[in-house]
Amino acid sequence: MPVRSRISLDYTRMLAPALGGGRGIDPERLDTLADRFRSIQADVDRRREEGKLGFFELPYAEEVVERIVEFADGPGQAFQNVVVLGIGGSALGATALRTALRPPGWNELPDEARDHFPRLFVLDNVDPESVASLLDHIDPSTTLFNVVSKSGGTAETMSQFLIVRERLERELGDGYRRHLIFTTDPESGVLRRLADEEGVATLAVPQNVGGRYSVLSPVGLLPAALIGIPITQLLAGAREMDERCRTDSLADNPAALFAALQHLADTERNAPIHVMMPYADALRDVADWFRQLWAESLGKREGLDGEERFVGPTPVKALGATDQHSQLQLYMEGPFDKTVTFLAVDEPRRDVQIPSLYGDIPELGYLGGRTLGELLSAEREATAAALARAGRMSMTIDLPRIDAPSVGGLLHMLQVATVYAGALYGVNPLDQPGVELGKELTYARMGREGYDDTGADAAGSDAERRVCG
Amino acid sequence: MPVRSRISLDYTRMLAPALGGGRGIDPERLDTLADRFRSIQADVDRRREEGKLGFFELPYAEEVVERIVEFADGPGQAFQNVVVLGIGGSALGATALRTALRPPGWNELPDEARDHFPRLFVLDNVDPESVASLLDHIDPSTTLFNVVSKSGGTAETMSQFLIVRERLERELGDGYRRHLIFTTDPESGVLRRLADEEGVATLAVPQNVGGRYSVLSPVGLLPAALIGIPITQLLAGAREMDERCRTDSLADNPAALFAALQHLADTERNAPIHVMMPYADALRDVADWFRQLWAESLGKREGLDGEERFVGPTPVKALGATDQHSQLQLYMEGPFDKTVTFLAVDEPRRDVQIPSLYGDIPELGYLGGRTLGELLSAEREATAAALARAGRMSMTIDLPRIDAPSVGGLLHMLQVATVYAGALYGVNPLDQPGVELGKELTYARMGREGYDDTGADAAGSDAERRVCG
Repeated sequence: MPVRSRISLDYTRMLAPALGGGRGIDPERLDTLADRFRSIQADVDRRREEGKLGFFELPYAEEVVERIVEFADGPGQAFQNVVVLGIGGSALGATALRTALRPPGWNELPDEARDHFPRLFVLDNVDPESVASLLDHIDPSTTLFNVVSKSGGTAETMSQFLIVRERLERELGDGYRRHLIFTTDPESGVLRRLADEEGVATLAVPQNVGGRYSVLSPVGLLPAALIGIPITQLLAGAREMDERCRTDSLADNPAALFAALQHLADTERNAPIHVMMPYADALRDVADWFRQLWAESLGKREGLDGEERFVGPTPVKALGATDQHSQLQLYMEGPFDKTVTFLAVDEPRRDVQIPSLYGDIPELGYLGGRTLGELLSAEREATAAALARAGRMSMTIDLPRIDAPSVGGLLHMLQVATVYAGALYGVNPLDQPGVELGKELTYARMGREGYDDTGADAAGSDAERRVCG
Repeated sequence: MPVRSRISLDYTRMLAPALGGGRGIDPERLDTLADRFRSIQADVDRRREEGKLGFFELPYAEEVVERIVEFADGPGQAFQNVVVLGIGGSALGATALRTALRPPGWNELPDEARDHFPRLFVLDNVDPESVASLLDHIDPSTTLFNVVSKSGGTAETMSQFLIVRERLERELGDGYRRHLIFTTDPESGVLRRLADEEGVATLAVPQNVGGRYSVLSPVGLLPAALIGIPITQLLAGAREMDERCRTDSLADNPAALFAALQHLADTERNAPIHVMMPYADALRDVADWFRQLWAESLGKREGLDGEERFVGPTPVKALGATDQHSQLQLYMEGPFDKTVTFLAVDEPRRDVQIPSLYGDIPELGYLGGRTLGELLSAEREATAAALARAGRMSMTIDLPRIDAPSVGGLLHMLQVATVYAGALYGVNPLDQPGVELGKELTYARMGREGYDDTGADAAGSDAERRVCG
């Protein structure tokens, strides 16, 4: 296969001619969307110019990048550990970047193998055992805690912060503040207020950038820069993708094609389950990051027209070749309710030769002399072909290699695609009204003033409890 | 909440009375299944007696356990690292047990914190970068490689084996064989043959136990025992659950209730997406293990009657509280196509107090003096209540604590539930015919004799390629 110089999207096998048996999307239906996409793109352009889609401008924010690099290359290198306290959009981007762009098992590597860059821990839950265990095993005096919350009010992150804040001051006295950096709203919120009062360093999340679109803001960039990821290259890749996604020609816009195909698969082919299946361990957390982006942006009760819709595809994370031995049976033979998006990499960063041993044993002989990279590619191609033969839709996003420009381009492409998909589904891809009730009921259970949970189970508070146990 | 002494299933919120608005399962429909379940149970009893459901007997296999414990406590303790070479059902069980029953970040802990038990790496993919990186950083002379493949022919595992085998002999000469142990078929297959010829230690997977039901066989038990998990307690918990699941009274059989509720949700309430959402980091890989069990067992083209069915629910792994900030928006407001099964833990193994700081700031003050365990429980209960208010089905499997008996019970319960679900869906929960085509096409691409991929895309080999890039 020729090595591509940029990301490509092969969607042959989303379409009916490649699947047969009446399966797949009719290419004419895709063509029909071309007109509609032109008006969607015009609308996106308009909202972008009005500053309502702030994430589009992140790849161009040179001053911010300079500040981050200055901190990361200066004071940041005094630390042996960086711990992100954050959850959801405040955590997933940093994790995805670390897994994609640093060697496997980064935190387990010896100092030299990490080029003396710090370890990066992302504390994205309040499981007491995980939190306690991490705090047991890191030395606060060599650790930087990056508290990430746009609002400054996230219960999980604030709980972690209180625990860390108390411990830092207890062990380091007044110097505690040099072990904190807050990534938060530029003006409002608790973290901003505390930073001002206590002299803690901060970075700002632009107000027009939501959590799940923040990976290329300081939310993702600071942790990435601290562990030596070249964030200028990451943004260069995002800018290149941004240029490619400015066209209003559907067939030439990879983000638009991705959105249009997924939307048609869901609404016209009854395939609301959208699997993302990287064939590279390094991209597994990109799929996890995408899971939030796609689910939280498109899963909506209300349409833009105010009507009840209850729409939204369900993103599923899988991993090739591993999940061929877990999920493929279902994808091949179950309901025709899925699309699979493969993430492929043309050139692995490293490869491993399989030795020619036991040449006379048929189950082993054919492997000798090939490489693991070849095996992984063969498995991906075979899986895509097998799915097509079974009438199952799939497409492949091809990266020339896993490096900062490609990953920046991929993340940006998926964010732009999500905005287009919002338009196609007729929903607001920037809000998340459905999570408020859960937050309020949590506050009530935690005894926060002004919240109570009377009527928590409005419909069924008097329903008979049914328990086996 | 009173601490339970055993696993319970609370399914109040799967049923219509708790949801209102015409949502949820009609309790009478569940009652109707009680008769059908009695005949399903009779059939399962019969197949069990005929030896066709071998996994049921694993918790009673005392001799096997003795052999494993003998090896693990003896020669096994000579190693600092254990590396499982396996994929799918040969890997997921070991990973689930390690994550559940050993402290977080096991492999990163210093020797003393691991009580000098070895690290456990599960190499469940052929990504060359991951394989190379692991082999870079472990010393073969202190490592035991446990090659797990029932057939002995799995391409991924055999590739890893060839690489490891060559390196072991190169570095350790004839002593290589003491660094290998094969878990494979008792009689046939390549691994069995090689073990006999080269004098490699082995453990047998009973022939009537399939990969995805093998966690309580040597496949899962050997790695578990090597890292100090009390496998006898694990099996004791499984036996206790097995006793509970012998009743043919649906309302008293937790595995049957789980299967029946999921089946009714899928087939009568259009909810084919089955989310498992542990509120404990330690149980996250149990959800991943379940994902294979549920998908591969129930996702089937053909029913037991030979008719085309294309059935099978899609299992989804989520994690509380983390995924409240990623998937909950979709679960609350998207289509009514999901059930959520919470995994709850009454008593966390450790808890962390949240300090009372900043008592005057409303966003922080209410947290002080509570614990992370309380917060996590409050979030789970709030999420379940919020979902119910939005008309969304959920149930909760409660573990008294995360220990070997509870985890053994949980795993066994889910395996038994899968067999019942197979009966309800009318499919064979023990086979996986759909993965063969992909394997054959992989062999063809790898040049294995006797395989070719002409006509790989039977329907669309002449379909026009559609690529944007």
